[in-house]
Amino acid sequence: MKAEIIAVGSEMLTPFRQDTNSLFLTEKFNEMGVTVAFKTIVGDRRKDIASAIQTALGRIDILAIMGGLGPTEDDLTREAVAEALSISLHRDATQVATIHARAAQFRMTLPSNNLKQADVLEGAIILPNPNGSAPGQWLDVTYNDYRKLVFLIPGPPNECRPLFENECMPRLRQELPKRSIAKRTLRAAMIAESQADKLLAPIYTRYTDVETTILAHAGDIQLTLLCTKSNPTLAQQRVDELAGALEEALEDWLYSSGAETADSLEQIVLYYLGLRGATLAVAESCTGGLIAQRITSVPGSSRSFLGGAVVYSDELKTAFANVPPQLIARYGAVSQQVAEALAEGIRLRTGANIGVGVTGIAGPTGATESKPVGLVYIAISAFQNTECIEKHFRGDRDRVRQLAAHQALDLIRKRLM
Amino acid sequence: MKAEIIAVGSEMLTPFRQDTNSLFLTEKFNEMGVTVAFKTIVGDRRKDIASAIQTALGRIDILAIMGGLGPTEDDLTREAVAEALSISLHRDATQVATIHARAAQFRMTLPSNNLKQADVLEGAIILPNPNGSAPGQWLDVTYNDYRKLVFLIPGPPNECRPLFENECMPRLRQELPKRSIAKRTLRAAMIAESQADKLLAPIYTRYTDVETTILAHAGDIQLTLLCTKSNPTLAQQRVDELAGALEEALEDWLYSSGAETADSLEQIVLYYLGLRGATLAVAESCTGGLIAQRITSVPGSSRSFLGGAVVYSDELKTAFANVPPQLIARYGAVSQQVAEALAEGIRLRTGANIGVGVTGIAGPTGATESKPVGLVYIAISAFQNTECIEKHFRGDRDRVRQLAAHQALDLIRKRLM
Repeated sequence: MKAEIIAVGSEMLTPFRQDTNSLFLTEKFNEMGVTVAFKTIVGDRRKDIASAIQTALGRIDILAIMGGLGPTEDDLTREAVAEALSISLHRDATQVATIHARAAQFRMTLPSNNLKQADVLEGAIILPNPNGSAPGQWLDVTYNDYRKLVFLIPGPPNECRPLFENECMPRLRQELPKRSIAKRTLRAAMIAESQADKLLAPIYTRYTDVETTILAHAGDIQLTLLCTKSNPTLAQQRVDELAGALEEALEDWLYSSGAETADSLEQIVLYYLGLRGATLAVAESCTGGLIAQRITSVPGSSRSFLGGAVVYSDELKTAFANVPPQLIARYGAVSQQVAEALAEGIRLRTGANIGVGVTGIAGPTGATESKPVGLVYIAISAFQNTECIEKHFRGDRDRVRQLAAHQALDLIRKRLM
Repeated sequence: MKAEIIAVGSEMLTPFRQDTNSLFLTEKFNEMGVTVAFKTIVGDRRKDIASAIQTALGRIDILAIMGGLGPTEDDLTREAVAEALSISLHRDATQVATIHARAAQFRMTLPSNNLKQADVLEGAIILPNPNGSAPGQWLDVTYNDYRKLVFLIPGPPNECRPLFENECMPRLRQELPKRSIAKRTLRAAMIAESQADKLLAPIYTRYTDVETTILAHAGDIQLTLLCTKSNPTLAQQRVDELAGALEEALEDWLYSSGAETADSLEQIVLYYLGLRGATLAVAESCTGGLIAQRITSVPGSSRSFLGGAVVYSDELKTAFANVPPQLIARYGAVSQQVAEALAEGIRLRTGANIGVGVTGIAGPTGATESKPVGLVYIAISAFQNTECIEKHFRGDRDRVRQLAAHQALDLIRKRLM
């Protein structure tokens, strides 16, 4: 079965806003074995919405229309569906009462316009929306002699997503052939995208019954494996088999692997820190707080992460991480020696088991002939032993900083394993 | 004139990847006075692409098709356009030579498949693509008796965007009526979205000839004003008039205003620091490095930003920012007293002119009855004077941290003004 998602709203045809609900809906459709074949974004014009609906019904089986169900004059999805399918709209008394009750509960006076949210399409089933005033609607119709399933879903993400999961999915599942879907997610760090492709493509292309998606971003690679079969054991077996082969090929680039989602690198680092009862502190120069920020984004990180220093100036490298000024004078702030001194110094100053020091040139300025933009030193001091690596990252300031932070987290992970 | 953007690629119909080029293209179309009326996303299936093209040509004047121009079997845009328009494809000898030359330059052996990138549509003008091997194409055709302009554009962002700017825009401008577009962008911090709307809507709705777009994100509001007129002076005058009225209404929530884009809050903070020759240091607990990371994301920030401390543990609050342990024991780590001590301490320890201290409960754990999730204290110590504010932010861990960082930056800005 094929689906199309239509997102209604002129704001999504500006340079500023993008439909994101459709990513969520696509994930849920795929989990039910439904492929999304088209997405259409259309503005708040009744004629355009109706034409998009007719185009969609001519090419797919399931149509999800998001947005345009609110109370304003610009909310025209109900009217457009009525026009596209040549069916009528009627004001539903129960819905009118629900809208009045909701207004009373929030002590709002009700603009008369609001009642258009009680308009229901001929033959539609109302899908309750506890998070907003406009309900969803579900239509099971015949269009040009074919059966089509049509959903009207409110646009705000906090209404759209629960309504799709709680109201649309159970109804859809009853209409779809019984199938089982097995899923696995793998994540790997600091392997080049082209290298990963060369290594992994010969493996996953052999599993034609497993859909493999690779997503790469700033030093991180995420692989999602999906297998749909009537036999759940077989689906799981195929996915596990492929996951095993990919895990082996990825060697220690692989950092996490899970049934549904896979943990982020910062989650894995915190997991290993907890396992070993170890504590961490960081001294960051060119990453400017990015490593600390990523670690502290994880709830409960305070159990293992003591904190750190953002040592942008040379003076702070000395004041917070004991880096001797002579060392900076002799080797420069961006050097292996200073990175190591930062790691050791922050470890001693904080009493952490593991200290990390990062110094580099993020650009666009600050480069010299011997120290180009992208040069980064990352040192780890742990258990009486300090190691340092030198990296040359390519990209703009933002990318160099992101890669350096990701590399640092990956080094901590490897050191803990 | 109305445009449609078709993005071709099955990866954009997965839950993992989204078309982002279209935001760039939309901005550029709008700058030329062209409205984007539809966006369609379609997978790598020739029949589907051809059908999407025919649908588009039935409803708009200008069609931009991105992607599907590469050398693989899945790259079918050229073939689909030929099918949709019933025109032929021929292999262009000059393009074949260009592809061979490019391969030689990069010392690649050329898979024979690659030559399909030299296939040119009947009547098309080739648009050179210096950043990749597939050129763009431009067609000026008649479809169902109407004139249509069609662009084929490569999908990778680093090829798509320069090609659109350098090759498509000059050609399009010649076809469009001469019009002038004036633009202004305003940004404001820490004003609630509903409050901003109540304050600003009565103003901008009076300017029906200026298109006002409001974008809100984590405590930040961005307003974009666009006015299109045949008379450039008049367009500028209308935009400036509205901008002036909005600036006045926004009072000191407004932090930047520019002709094209407006500076970010961290850029503004650094601008004022530079202007006053002042230096800054931060001591962050619940924001965990987020403030330092935002400031250091700006090139050249090292001139005014000395650095800071991420003081997650109580011990580090003392070690790096001189917070007396008794103070923490008496008032708790999340308290006005500790925030003020952090701000004063980090200022003294680093020798900065301005010190900032942030402590709070980002959640989801760590709350007590008197100190709920979202409670954050932000203190600024500057020029012999320390001030602290108490905030109650709503939202999850990520949002509380973002709001706290934004609020801290905004306080620094206000203090510098």
